[in-house]
Amino acid sequence: MSILIRGGTVVNVDTEFRADVLCEGGKILAVAAQLEAPAGAEVIDAGGLYVMPGGIDPHTHMQLPFMGTVTQDDFFSGTAAGLAGGTTSIIDFVIPDPQQSLMAAFQQWRSWAEKSAADYSFHVAVTWWDDSVHRDMGTLVQEHGVNSFKHFMAYKNAIMADDEILVNSFSRAVELGAMPTVHAENGELVYRLQQALLTQGKTGPASHPLSRPPVVEAEAAQRAIAIADVLHTPLYIVHVSCAESLAAITLARSKGQRVFGEVLAGHLTVNDSVYQQTDFAQAAAHVMSPPFRAAHHQQALWQGLQSGNLHTTATDHCTFCAAQKAASKDDFTRIPNGCGGIEERMMVLWDAGVNSGKLTPSEFVRVTSANCAQIFNIYPRKGVIAAGSDADLVLWDPAASRTLSVKTQFSRGDFNVFEGRQVRGVPTHTISGGRLAYQLGDLRAVAGAGQYVKRPPYSAVFAAMDKMRSAY
Amino acid sequence: MSILIRGGTVVNVDTEFRADVLCEGGKILAVAAQLEAPAGAEVIDAGGLYVMPGGIDPHTHMQLPFMGTVTQDDFFSGTAAGLAGGTTSIIDFVIPDPQQSLMAAFQQWRSWAEKSAADYSFHVAVTWWDDSVHRDMGTLVQEHGVNSFKHFMAYKNAIMADDEILVNSFSRAVELGAMPTVHAENGELVYRLQQALLTQGKTGPASHPLSRPPVVEAEAAQRAIAIADVLHTPLYIVHVSCAESLAAITLARSKGQRVFGEVLAGHLTVNDSVYQQTDFAQAAAHVMSPPFRAAHHQQALWQGLQSGNLHTTATDHCTFCAAQKAASKDDFTRIPNGCGGIEERMMVLWDAGVNSGKLTPSEFVRVTSANCAQIFNIYPRKGVIAAGSDADLVLWDPAASRTLSVKTQFSRGDFNVFEGRQVRGVPTHTISGGRLAYQLGDLRAVAGAGQYVKRPPYSAVFAAMDKMRSAY
Amino acid sequence: MSILIRGGTVVNVDTEFRADVLCEGGKILAVAAQLEAPAGAEVIDAGGLYVMPGGIDPHTHMQLPFMGTVTQDDFFSGTAAGLAGGTTSIIDFVIPDPQQSLMAAFQQWRSWAEKSAADYSFHVAVTWWDDSVHRDMGTLVQEHGVNSFKHFMAYKNAIMADDEILVNSFSRAVELGAMPTVHAENGELVYRLQQALLTQGKTGPASHPLSRPPVVEAEAAQRAIAIADVLHTPLYIVHVSCAESLAAITLARSKGQRVFGEVLAGHLTVNDSVYQQTDFAQAAAHVMSPPFRAAHHQQALWQGLQSGNLHTTATDHCTFCAAQKAASKDDFTRIPNGCGGIEERMMVLWDAGVNSGKLTPSEFVRVTSANCAQIFNIYPRKGVIAAGSDADLVLWDPAASRTLSVKTQFSRGDFNVFEGRQVRGVPTHTISGGRLAYQLGDLRAVAGAGQYVKRPPYSAVFAAMDKMRSAY
Amino acid sequence: MSILIRGGTVVNVDTEFRADVLCEGGKILAVAAQLEAPAGAEVIDAGGLYVMPGGIDPHTHMQLPFMGTVTQDDFFSGTAAGLAGGTTSIIDFVIPDPQQSLMAAFQQWRSWAEKSAADYSFHVAVTWWDDSVHRDMGTLVQEHGVNSFKHFMAYKNAIMADDEILVNSFSRAVELGAMPTVHAENGELVYRLQQALLTQGKTGPASHPLSRPPVVEAEAAQRAIAIADVLHTPLYIVHVSCAESLAAITLARSKGQRVFGEVLAGHLTVNDSVYQQTDFAQAAAHVMSPPFRAAHHQQALWQGLQSGNLHTTATDHCTFCAAQKAASKDDFTRIPNGCGGIEERMMVLWDAGVNSGKLTPSEFVRVTSANCAQIFNIYPRKGVIAAGSDADLVLWDPAASRTLSVKTQFSRGDFNVFEGRQVRGVPTHTISGGRLAYQLGDLRAVAGAGQYVKRPPYSAVFAAMDKMRSAY
Repeated sequence: MSILIRGGTVVNVDTEFRADVLCEGGKILAVAAQLEAPAGAEVIDAGGLYVMPGGIDPHTHMQLPFMGTVTQDDFFSGTAAGLAGGTTSIIDFVIPDPQQSLMAAFQQWRSWAEKSAADYSFHVAVTWWDDSVHRDMGTLVQEHGVNSFKHFMAYKNAIMADDEILVNSFSRAVELGAMPTVHAENGELVYRLQQALLTQGKTGPASHPLSRPPVVEAEAAQRAIAIADVLHTPLYIVHVSCAESLAAITLARSKGQRVFGEVLAGHLTVNDSVYQQTDFAQAAAHVMSPPFRAAHHQQALWQGLQSGNLHTTATDHCTFCAAQKAASKDDFTRIPNGCGGIEERMMVLWDAGVNSGKLTPSEFVRVTSANCAQIFNIYPRKGVIAAGSDADLVLWDPAASRTLSVKTQFSRGDFNVFEGRQVRGVPTHTISGGRLAYQLGDLRAVAGAGQYVKRPPYSAVFAAMDKMRSAY
Repeated sequence: MSILIRGGTVVNVDTEFRADVLCEGGKILAVAAQLEAPAGAEVIDAGGLYVMPGGIDPHTHMQLPFMGTVTQDDFFSGTAAGLAGGTTSIIDFVIPDPQQSLMAAFQQWRSWAEKSAADYSFHVAVTWWDDSVHRDMGTLVQEHGVNSFKHFMAYKNAIMADDEILVNSFSRAVELGAMPTVHAENGELVYRLQQALLTQGKTGPASHPLSRPPVVEAEAAQRAIAIADVLHTPLYIVHVSCAESLAAITLARSKGQRVFGEVLAGHLTVNDSVYQQTDFAQAAAHVMSPPFRAAHHQQALWQGLQSGNLHTTATDHCTFCAAQKAASKDDFTRIPNGCGGIEERMMVLWDAGVNSGKLTPSEFVRVTSANCAQIFNIYPRKGVIAAGSDADLVLWDPAASRTLSVKTQFSRGDFNVFEGRQVRGVPTHTISGGRLAYQLGDLRAVAGAGQYVKRPPYSAVFAAMDKMRSAY
Repeated sequence: MSILIRGGTVVNVDTEFRADVLCEGGKILAVAAQLEAPAGAEVIDAGGLYVMPGGIDPHTHMQLPFMGTVTQDDFFSGTAAGLAGGTTSIIDFVIPDPQQSLMAAFQQWRSWAEKSAADYSFHVAVTWWDDSVHRDMGTLVQEHGVNSFKHFMAYKNAIMADDEILVNSFSRAVELGAMPTVHAENGELVYRLQQALLTQGKTGPASHPLSRPPVVEAEAAQRAIAIADVLHTPLYIVHVSCAESLAAITLARSKGQRVFGEVLAGHLTVNDSVYQQTDFAQAAAHVMSPPFRAAHHQQALWQGLQSGNLHTTATDHCTFCAAQKAASKDDFTRIPNGCGGIEERMMVLWDAGVNSGKLTPSEFVRVTSANCAQIFNIYPRKGVIAAGSDADLVLWDPAASRTLSVKTQFSRGDFNVFEGRQVRGVPTHTISGGRLAYQLGDLRAVAGAGQYVKRPPYSAVFAAMDKMRSAY
Repeated sequence: MSILIRGGTVVNVDTEFRADVLCEGGKILAVAAQLEAPAGAEVIDAGGLYVMPGGIDPHTHMQLPFMGTVTQDDFFSGTAAGLAGGTTSIIDFVIPDPQQSLMAAFQQWRSWAEKSAADYSFHVAVTWWDDSVHRDMGTLVQEHGVNSFKHFMAYKNAIMADDEILVNSFSRAVELGAMPTVHAENGELVYRLQQALLTQGKTGPASHPLSRPPVVEAEAAQRAIAIADVLHTPLYIVHVSCAESLAAITLARSKGQRVFGEVLAGHLTVNDSVYQQTDFAQAAAHVMSPPFRAAHHQQALWQGLQSGNLHTTATDHCTFCAAQKAASKDDFTRIPNGCGGIEERMMVLWDAGVNSGKLTPSEFVRVTSANCAQIFNIYPRKGVIAAGSDADLVLWDPAASRTLSVKTQFSRGDFNVFEGRQVRGVPTHTISGGRLAYQLGDLRAVAGAGQYVKRPPYSAVFAAMDKMRSAY
């Protein structure tokens, strides 16, 4: 089946221009003015619309296991919700338990993800260390298309990676041409603050942000940056949520260090007043880590996107339902962490970013797909509208408006952190792997239509860093 | 005539890939694997070579008048030297005297430039203010393809623009969708330091850098940034030479302000020890403003390029000969300012930047052409290798070496600030407007072959800033 | 008459300790444990009280002429109000009109000040330049005890000093051992913003802060710092009101530059919501320059005091009454600028600073008197409780509370910017020149009791800078 | 015995003034003009001399055990050398082995120190954690006059404190009113770099600085600052050696955090070229941690002292002899760390700091004694010349010169890191506890003349922080 998108304004990271786009066989066949429609092609009139690369969400947790249950969105419903919002790829996380084989965990997640409606890939977490981990990292990179490894600097007594693990794993990753990534929060300090709050009887969700103040995140970000600097590795920091860790990234980058930052749509637009709500369910629904922050951090995060000190936008989509959240009413440290957002990310970013003049349309593409594809080395397969690229696109009506709500969302989660938010600028059509997967409210997601995306190691950044390293 | 470049690695700002490139009628016709050579096409074997967009030098002064003489390189020899170094476009400066009509000056420079061997365009300086200047700015933008205006914050009692002129001109520029640019040095402080040094009998070239310390540049940069911030205009700062003004840019950018910085190949690689030479001619040959700086500034400037806080690389090519330089042996303030470099810029940058791992090849393209084309709104006509773009390209041999010298340069200047520098990575072929203009030492520059490049106003940045401005 | 203060805790800038304090002949005679009361001495029981150096307000405008009227507080009532609040010295401003002789203006202000109830001194403004100004600066320093000169970088078309004047005057000041000081706001930008707002019909007091945003202040601060840096002079910046100019000071100081910053009690505690009041009189009563700022600036300013990047606290006490403020209801640019505060400064600072733990009592003394006395070279005559120092003291009850109000103030102004503010920590007794001038609500100010304080040039800072300068 | 110092210029932290100083019974009895000499008093003519508080060195290791030997200077010779250089007090370190009782280690060090010739006190290191450590910290503070605890963030597999220990110990310290201090280097990264260098066969002293680059120090400094911030404790960072950790301190302080920094005389004046010497003994003699740094760090450290972001100057005096240093010629990681300096510190600082105009004499006193006494809460007993203070003074001849050398030093070490350095400004007399201990080259040190100085907890800073903490 072929699709001809006619009369739109194509937006890529480097420029925007009027052109038709022809998709066939899952690929973009041509991008040019006045293309002829092949016989049988579906023709979509994109007059007045932007035609952009489909969004890539580099941070999701679909079907995440939690004490015998799983999050509400599995790989099908989660990726389908993404398609409804213009997102055509995700990178999810394989999280082995300490002592669990990385390969075993990877295979498990792979099997869960087979029903995905859109393309998917995996970061693999390094939560412990021994020779098998060292070996499995090699296998994952060389045989399974994994080119990034995740490290949790928080979650003491669980999956926290201490400096020794970080140093081992970063060293191994750079040797393999794979990107080290971190969840940056100092687990020791979080633990102490949690204990102190519980001791004081402050057991509700309002204590959650108090136990994870910005300094706790900034400390870990700085430490990871220092480790990467010493080992001459690049570094990707997930869900940067506050001015202080952004400042650490900005400083490192200004000195030429190759540090990349990710920011969540939620952290850009929702502030920490949500934890003050007296209704437990409302407050607990916002419990995620890092937490939502005081409003001035949002301004800083937007500036990070504008200045190129933050690179990607994600959601950390992880949909625990009210019942799951309510399992620990008297101990905020045991409320399962997570919020949704894959469906709303691009709308929220367009509305708050492009409509306000903070971002140009090309910069929107930069932070919703192109940078992610470049950092994780799947560009130009993903992240650009060009002949030969995957036919993952979204058509965007900058004049249309919508009110976001749990009532109208496709995600199976029972909450929407953007509830009631009015946005202008919405997807009208999403094309995924050459298929029209969403059109004007009609979601045509197909279980299993998504492909596993192998990501090759050694992006250009690694070649450059090899030259640097050899100078020492 | 058509040219097929076969088997090279095409490097664009967003990616690099193996492809053939077909040029015809002055344009790039196709970029794809395994292209067929049309009949009569010249086929160039680019095996082992990079194929990159031709360099754009956004800061040159060809044929600059000075006290009845002119610089050694006119528009023909200067652009020809550029072609020999892989640079296929320049943006030169129209500099009206105070009280001189902008239109008259523009026409004069246009006529001088007709013999250019490569494409050219003009920034126009605003050195004074009245209603005619306001009107001429409009005419230049709307009818003559000028989309940038230059302001000298130095040169008191000559062409210095004070805050009142800056505010008037920046306001007018943004209304026209044109970019304000500044030479950032505080003219009052330079003047005082010059007078103090002359009074102390320190009259030689060694006083030149003492009269223009980094703080003098940083002050002006900060002031221009503040003015642009208040007026909600973008800003482009030419020849950033020191850590302190880079820091001002970095800070402004980190807050989301759209400030762009240019750095000269000379400032990146030559330090201020050159002024300590006892031979007057040697020292005077390096007199330019801002001056060469202490070595640690070079590290900072490279970090600026790496981090994206500096955007373009230029030369300020302005070739006064030894006799012209020697006209004022007993008063360093009267030595004509200027150095060459258009021919060496790309080699120096590749060698010091890419070979060391500071920059990837795509980042090299970013800072030698793509960013410049985007900022001055001639992208994707220039700055990218893509179907439809101008056929301005350079083929680059990363393995070949050369020693830079005045003896082997094509420029008519009698000095080379990079004298004796060994570089690895050199241009083998330069294609300009679809013509093979340089091949392996054979320069085939043709007077008048270069075209005047009209640059349209209102790049995407201006549209975004309009949205911001309307919010106030 | 002698006074013995018994049983208090003496607080100096370097330490606090239990001691009695004996005052006689206008001086402190002894500070020691268990002093004997001389015959006839008045004994004050300071049990539970702090005994601190009397406050010095380095920034007041008493009896300021304005269009044929003057501010409500003359030198008597203004200094008397100060005594009621624990402030025993002021440094006011002599402001010559452009072209007016500095000496003539100085004599005029001296005569007005003769009725002062507390000690006073004068900064002299340099608002224009010619040889007579150069000469008069010398006379003022060498014969009249002036060791600081003020420069207004704002107020275009009136008393604004451009870069040329600043450079001339700073150079002259350092040669005389006198401190250059600046009101830092870019007058050109303020003017443009004012015109733009008036053109848009935004003529009310709400436009006042919009015409003087933080960037306008920061630009001027940075420029003054750069000039001081180039000329190797110290610099004192009056009424620093925003995070951005504090950042400029902090950066300069971190590089070893001797820059000093003053902050107003009002800027530390009142935010810009005051300009949103619909009542013209209320909003206009807060019109001063720089304006009150958004709340986050207050946090920054406190941090500046804590970190030692801000040094003195002042008030800019300048009390126009409602009728004077109302003279220009349809043009905010003509509302006379000024607010009161001399009476409340120390209470507001203690309550917000010491009670919260931001400042220790010694640090409170540092920022209310000692630093000022050191910077303006009247330490240890003022600013410390030690044998031989002037008997200027305040006894302070940290447990007593008060509500600040125009209804209970001694100042003749008809407004109180701290209206309704509850403070804990109040002066119980003020001793000025050895006289008990205030006791528990009983103000015993005497017209003419204050002395003119001659301030010698060449503090230790100048000797150090001379060594630095000679190295160049 | 009483001593009258006549006709000198007394320098205190807040001012300098002409006065005579009378010492009696180990205390300063009077500071005033024209004092009468008591019968039998020794009168010292201080005409042309400065009279300053005796230096306090807050960081020494006298008689440090190392593999069955000890450093060359024991508590007698080390403190005696200090007296020869104008230093009258030290704070040394008690360093328990992991699992060793703090009290036992403390008693051991106390006994070693009994022969000290000058006053001494102890920081106690926390190198491990259990309930006994918690209890002993209390005992030490409440009964033994210890008010500071040291933590080594380096030295993995030995005395390194991880985050858990730091959090435990900082929490306990603040509860006791005692200052947490850290040696800031990331032990994990040092270890990895050491292993990497050894693996590459880089086994000599030149590898020492490569294994401890500035980023390793900065990371630890930032981490300690973050922990102190979260726990609302003050923090003192010993031997800050590089621009990057200074920057971390400067930033924290600019936000109002109470972080204090110490810098060594050696780091201020000696650069890392010393490690390039081919002679093993010469290079090894400079092995200490943090290592000497590239020259630009010295400029930064001086700026830290000037700006008040660094507070104290020390030496880390620790004199291993050549034979001890040579024990590990083929493994730089086993060369015992340490250099001398207690005798030269004040001369080096005066010469490089005061003679150049970087510091005024009062600022010299601030960084050589007063700040240290205030931070460790023994002011005004130490650190000031005032009636009632300890009679610890140094008379200083700013015009006299000397060449520093191992040949003329009193220290028993066999090396001098300042060898050959010419200084102007030298001590002529040192008075320690009221005794004339040094006079014009004649050292009259007496074993056991020094007293153990108990330092009380809860300085004013702790009271302020208690108020802050209670607000959370």
